[in-house]
Amino acid sequence: MTDRTIAVVGTGLIGASWAAYYLARGFRVVASDPAGGAEEALRERIDGFWPTLETLGLDEGASRDRLEFTPSIADAARGADFVQENGPERLDIKRSILAEIEQGVGEDVLIATSSSGLLVSEAQKGMRHPQRLVLGHPFNPPHLIPLVEVLGGEQTSPENVERAVAFYAGIGKKPIRINREVPGHVANRLQDALWREMFHLVSTGVASVADIDTAISYGPGLRWALMGPFLTMHAGGGDGGITHFLEHLGPAMRDWARDLGEYPETDEYVSTMAEGVEDELAGHDWAAALAARDRLLLGLLAAKAEAPEIP
Amino acid sequence: MTDRTIAVVGTGLIGASWAAYYLARGFRVVASDPAGGAEEALRERIDGFWPTLETLGLDEGASRDRLEFTPSIADAARGADFVQENGPERLDIKRSILAEIEQGVGEDVLIATSSSGLLVSEAQKGMRHPQRLVLGHPFNPPHLIPLVEVLGGEQTSPENVERAVAFYAGIGKKPIRINREVPGHVANRLQDALWREMFHLVSTGVASVADIDTAISYGPGLRWALMGPFLTMHAGGGDGGITHFLEHLGPAMRDWARDLGEYPETDEYVSTMAEGVEDELAGHDWAAALAARDRLLLGLLAAKAEAPEIP
Repeated sequence: MTDRTIAVVGTGLIGASWAAYYLARGFRVVASDPAGGAEEALRERIDGFWPTLETLGLDEGASRDRLEFTPSIADAARGADFVQENGPERLDIKRSILAEIEQGVGEDVLIATSSSGLLVSEAQKGMRHPQRLVLGHPFNPPHLIPLVEVLGGEQTSPENVERAVAFYAGIGKKPIRINREVPGHVANRLQDALWREMFHLVSTGVASVADIDTAISYGPGLRWALMGPFLTMHAGGGDGGITHFLEHLGPAMRDWARDLGEYPETDEYVSTMAEGVEDELAGHDWAAALAARDRLLLGLLAAKAEAPEIP
Repeated sequence: MTDRTIAVVGTGLIGASWAAYYLARGFRVVASDPAGGAEEALRERIDGFWPTLETLGLDEGASRDRLEFTPSIADAARGADFVQENGPERLDIKRSILAEIEQGVGEDVLIATSSSGLLVSEAQKGMRHPQRLVLGHPFNPPHLIPLVEVLGGEQTSPENVERAVAFYAGIGKKPIRINREVPGHVANRLQDALWREMFHLVSTGVASVADIDTAISYGPGLRWALMGPFLTMHAGGGDGGITHFLEHLGPAMRDWARDLGEYPETDEYVSTMAEGVEDELAGHDWAAALAARDRLLLGLLAAKAEAPEIP
């Protein structure tokens, strides 16, 4: 248990998942959301996440009883040691939420926004203490997936970026530093690069949705879960490492890259992909598949936690 | 044990791994390679792979004693029920190997080439029975990673593509059908799409090699090992499935895609990536990391084998 308090502002799916994670780490959490019925929805969601968090292991003194809720954002922020903001992805709303947070919170306290689409540099304009706003972008759902993308805007101090990285690392997350604001941050860009080629291969009839899923989940995806793709290349190069790998395969990779597809210009691809998913799931029980996937994910996270040899 | 025989032609790293896999499935294997010392190198490699194959489970009667070696490709192919060809990636050599195989093997027997770079349509020109040449492209190493990409060239009969898919599926591999010959087949194109953006993000200073590895292996990579990326989108869309997911996020994904990078034009990126890997591995024991990775991979494969609910 810790006497530190996290303010969780905005308690939709992402905010609720963050709140559950912070509770599991032993924090006191004060949450706020203006939506009607928000507190009840939040407590229900946390109850839903809790068995998983118990399986992953609770910190000493962690309890759902340490959750408080207030409709006032300023009240939630008052006395907090860290603020995780999860409001809507609209700049005007984001700025008004940040203003309310600043009414309550101490001037040195870090405010991390979960925003996937807005620029921190834009959001922090007009803040009283803009140097303490950072990106703390989780990968969904935050109570389960360790990645957090951390980034400072133009007015964020480098020290505060480091403080945020240290904070997340200290509570069991896997923070990365993004050095420059680019659309999609890092993880979503990497996903998008893969997705774009998946859509292209299906749209041009090269392979089915089901076969592309198999290609990843029984091919390179097996390795990417265990060790990052750069280290996987390093392993693939044998004694010569990534240098040998890229000198040997780079020319072919550059050629293939010229042939990769563009993102579909129109939305017709959506129904094509949906039909492919339907075909893939024929004869399968989707709920059972999801439950099995979640079970495997917990096992994988536990296995990785026992393998600190891997960077 | 089966009385069927596989001819493995070309016993470098990929051929040796295939030979070990076929032995583990209980086949008799007759291998051939013109290189000096090839038989000894092959037996050593198989000995190296065998403990892993024992851990994954041997079929009844599987034994390394069922490996025979002959320097004559035609002799190796004689009497075989299936041929796995793993020769050099040069069209003239490939055609001459295929001609030697056809001197020995029955006319109905499937010949699968492991080629990652050559077109089946080109390789099969001049064959006596070109309709039985298929692509059987593994993901390295074949004794461990289930994916096999199957494809027919212009002269391959559709029936033989189906026979090859059924053959691989029947021996525990995860074959996919590629309907059209494209550079890099499917899995390497998907990898390349991801790699290209990784190189871009590092080259432009957005994130470090280590942080990009973390972004994948503690972010989306965790999911891709368990369920393909299309089904992962379907899960991400909640009750609305992939249709909701793409209708909701597709516009942002299309915008991000416009900003994704190109493959580096020159080879200067190689040293940049190598330095990043060196930084990532500082303070780590690479051999221990690889051993841990291999251990986790066996656990992951075993866990997936117990989760048939997931397509």
